[in-house]
Amino acid sequence: MPQTSLPPSLHDALVQILGPSGVLTNPADTEAFCVDWRALYHGHCAAVLRPANTEECAKAVALCHAHNVPMVPQGGNTSMVGGATPDSSGRAVVISTTRMNQIHTIDHADLTMTVDAGVTLKAAQDAASAQGLLLPLSISSEGSADIGGILATNAGGNNTVRYGNARELALGLQAVLPDGNVLNLMRKLRKDNTGYALRQLLVGSEGTLGIITQAVIQLQPAPRSRETALCAVENPQGALNLFAAFRKQDPSAIHAFEFMSGTSMALVNGLIDGATLPLEAPAPAYVLVELASPRADDSLRSLMEDVLGSALEDGLVTDAVLAESESQRQSLWMIREEHAEAQKRAGASVKNDVSVPLAAIPEFIEAATKACEALIPGIRVAPFGHIGDGNIHFNLVQPEGADPAAFLAQDHAMMDTVAEIVRKLGGSFSAEHGVGQLKTYMMPSWRGGAELQAMRRIKAALDPQDLMNPGKVLPPAQA
Amino acid sequence: MPQTSLPPSLHDALVQILGPSGVLTNPADTEAFCVDWRALYHGHCAAVLRPANTEECAKAVALCHAHNVPMVPQGGNTSMVGGATPDSSGRAVVISTTRMNQIHTIDHADLTMTVDAGVTLKAAQDAASAQGLLLPLSISSEGSADIGGILATNAGGNNTVRYGNARELALGLQAVLPDGNVLNLMRKLRKDNTGYALRQLLVGSEGTLGIITQAVIQLQPAPRSRETALCAVENPQGALNLFAAFRKQDPSAIHAFEFMSGTSMALVNGLIDGATLPLEAPAPAYVLVELASPRADDSLRSLMEDVLGSALEDGLVTDAVLAESESQRQSLWMIREEHAEAQKRAGASVKNDVSVPLAAIPEFIEAATKACEALIPGIRVAPFGHIGDGNIHFNLVQPEGADPAAFLAQDHAMMDTVAEIVRKLGGSFSAEHGVGQLKTYMMPSWRGGAELQAMRRIKAALDPQDLMNPGKVLPPAQA
Repeated sequence: MPQTSLPPSLHDALVQILGPSGVLTNPADTEAFCVDWRALYHGHCAAVLRPANTEECAKAVALCHAHNVPMVPQGGNTSMVGGATPDSSGRAVVISTTRMNQIHTIDHADLTMTVDAGVTLKAAQDAASAQGLLLPLSISSEGSADIGGILATNAGGNNTVRYGNARELALGLQAVLPDGNVLNLMRKLRKDNTGYALRQLLVGSEGTLGIITQAVIQLQPAPRSRETALCAVENPQGALNLFAAFRKQDPSAIHAFEFMSGTSMALVNGLIDGATLPLEAPAPAYVLVELASPRADDSLRSLMEDVLGSALEDGLVTDAVLAESESQRQSLWMIREEHAEAQKRAGASVKNDVSVPLAAIPEFIEAATKACEALIPGIRVAPFGHIGDGNIHFNLVQPEGADPAAFLAQDHAMMDTVAEIVRKLGGSFSAEHGVGQLKTYMMPSWRGGAELQAMRRIKAALDPQDLMNPGKVLPPAQA
Repeated sequence: MPQTSLPPSLHDALVQILGPSGVLTNPADTEAFCVDWRALYHGHCAAVLRPANTEECAKAVALCHAHNVPMVPQGGNTSMVGGATPDSSGRAVVISTTRMNQIHTIDHADLTMTVDAGVTLKAAQDAASAQGLLLPLSISSEGSADIGGILATNAGGNNTVRYGNARELALGLQAVLPDGNVLNLMRKLRKDNTGYALRQLLVGSEGTLGIITQAVIQLQPAPRSRETALCAVENPQGALNLFAAFRKQDPSAIHAFEFMSGTSMALVNGLIDGATLPLEAPAPAYVLVELASPRADDSLRSLMEDVLGSALEDGLVTDAVLAESESQRQSLWMIREEHAEAQKRAGASVKNDVSVPLAAIPEFIEAATKACEALIPGIRVAPFGHIGDGNIHFNLVQPEGADPAAFLAQDHAMMDTVAEIVRKLGGSFSAEHGVGQLKTYMMPSWRGGAELQAMRRIKAALDPQDLMNPGKVLPPAQA
């Protein structure tokens, strides 16, 4: 007797389609699918369904649709905003993409990979790399996050500055719609003006319009030269000026352009083993810049030296170190990648994944820093992030020695303080992480009026019974 | 007394909003708006409305919506598929964007231009260029086509291979929805994951979901070096191999990669003054490749010479000429740009704007050539186009001395013959030109099932009265 609230006939029909291992109902098996990795949300589900391919997925969705059962698509379960966690009612099924995990083809003429939704980003990157190609999307959760998830959430990361978000990389797509029909957009075409942009709409809809089951991903030739430097600058404006200097020479060479505040860097240097600052002295702010190109000549090295040389001469950059080997390069990247971990070790922290227009970054950082310091004396304002995209992780670390719980009790005050400054500067309250369930409450005031109305109409048109990932992205309609 | 079928109260209210010169009803004034530039469609309208800004446009649309009057948005009236021409009923108003023609700002930090829909693409390019920037979209109708039109149709052109279609360039957007509400998405953010991709959906919807009135366009630094070469190759596969050789070195250097068949080139050389082939002898096929970079050093020249040197050595390229001056460069581009004109002078012709995956291009060209030659003995199969995007203008020129009308009477047989081969190869029946009214009949068999159903549902959700550009993109629903 399965432990599930599903009607027995539906349960049996699902087992018929998916096989016994494709339908999990034992709480010991399903629990991990009902909690997000940050453990912010603890839900329940009637079952976890694990289709092995699009056809199985479509049949399972059609059955759930016919029985009015809500469905929560889930990839690697790495959402930052509770986007893949069921609610607490236990009515929904989680539909996991993990068993759809074939890499079908890598096409060297078109530079594409045809891949199932459940393949992890890391596995897809490795498969491309093994054939001398680059899958140009990189995020810190890439070992778990899967292709379906990164497309559903329009993931960003370090290389967006050069290659765009996940949406720009999806040349083709297949998705199971809320009624179980399969939307087959698995085309490999760079130009195709034959109707509405359904592919682009599905990407970033966070599983509320359908379940992405397969994709054609645009690849690139693998870089054969790479130059990486860590630079000290006076302030965020200095970082932006340096970005403009590189961009003026060759925007397509810039594979990553990352900002780190002095406060955040000091935490890394103090709390992470081996993360010593490889510069003469601490600075107010830092940039990690990586140039890359498939060209094997030395033009990238000249570009790096020319721009940094001028910047040092002009005082724009006060100190810099160039990676002279792959291990030095990895050390520089380690320093960048340990910011989240260092902040965690420093105590409680509040994350703000925001973006503003590039021109507004200095004003944003200055104003938001002042406002947060006024709100909580001793707070450690520790921003870092993808400054080349206007995307700052404006993270706030508790005062030294303060009570973590007391600090976190003010999280909404801090988030709202930051958000209001972002709003005034024409920014976004969620640059990369999406809306999920964590941020639906912000949608009416930020994306209200005609915009939210259009989203609601599209949702109702494609999912009139509100069965696909209900409660995500769109807040409940006001009565 | 205005000559219009509009109710007098509506007419007066529109004049109140738009001013007397904003409402044209005299047939002498409106006629030009009712015929497409290819003169394939001759429609009628109740009036031409010419709002001067978004607010006026929104008020006018709300009024038409309240009176159930169909609306046909029109930019530069350069559609290849009758996308901006009203039907013959005379019920619709044409809403022209031409008076919304301000360039608001060019932002050097964000590299963006904020621009009204009615600014011509050429004027926008020139404004960017005057400030050392590049608006990286170029199409042959750019002197007339406007920003609203290129976004509504997701225009492509010569530089898509490097920068993508119009959709990829639109960072922000403002549109008037069918009910007169304004959708304000005028953000300047590279990362913003806060809900559905409405901007991407509006782009390419060909005016059926709303009227684009303003946009934020992503610019690039202007190129400071450029290398252009015309190359003779043995066949389409040779052209593709050359493309792969450049792409392997540096895909971002390739600003254009154009294919010309020997047949089409021979027409240009024979019928266009000054378009002499600058190579030793005619060849079966040609490539025009342009590399460009904002870098001022000589690395682009080395790249061009290295790749062409190897290709000549290997026999991949049989002859090549490099432009040594700007005037030589323009001569090479003139040869490419005169293909449409040369075909026109050669008699009647049928245009097929198709795309296939890159790997399928040789098979496509070979199979479609044979099939068309079998259909009409003596036909001159004269393909050319954006081979780097998989986009071939597979044009068919009448046999020498044949009767043009008799040739054109077989246009559907020719188009269907080509289309069936495209379909088998996973291609698209409209790569750049869109669907408009010319190709709606192809939608059910090419984009039918769940895809067309999803499009219809979205259309009904945003325009339940079917007032916005009715009869375009979506074919009439079957009774």
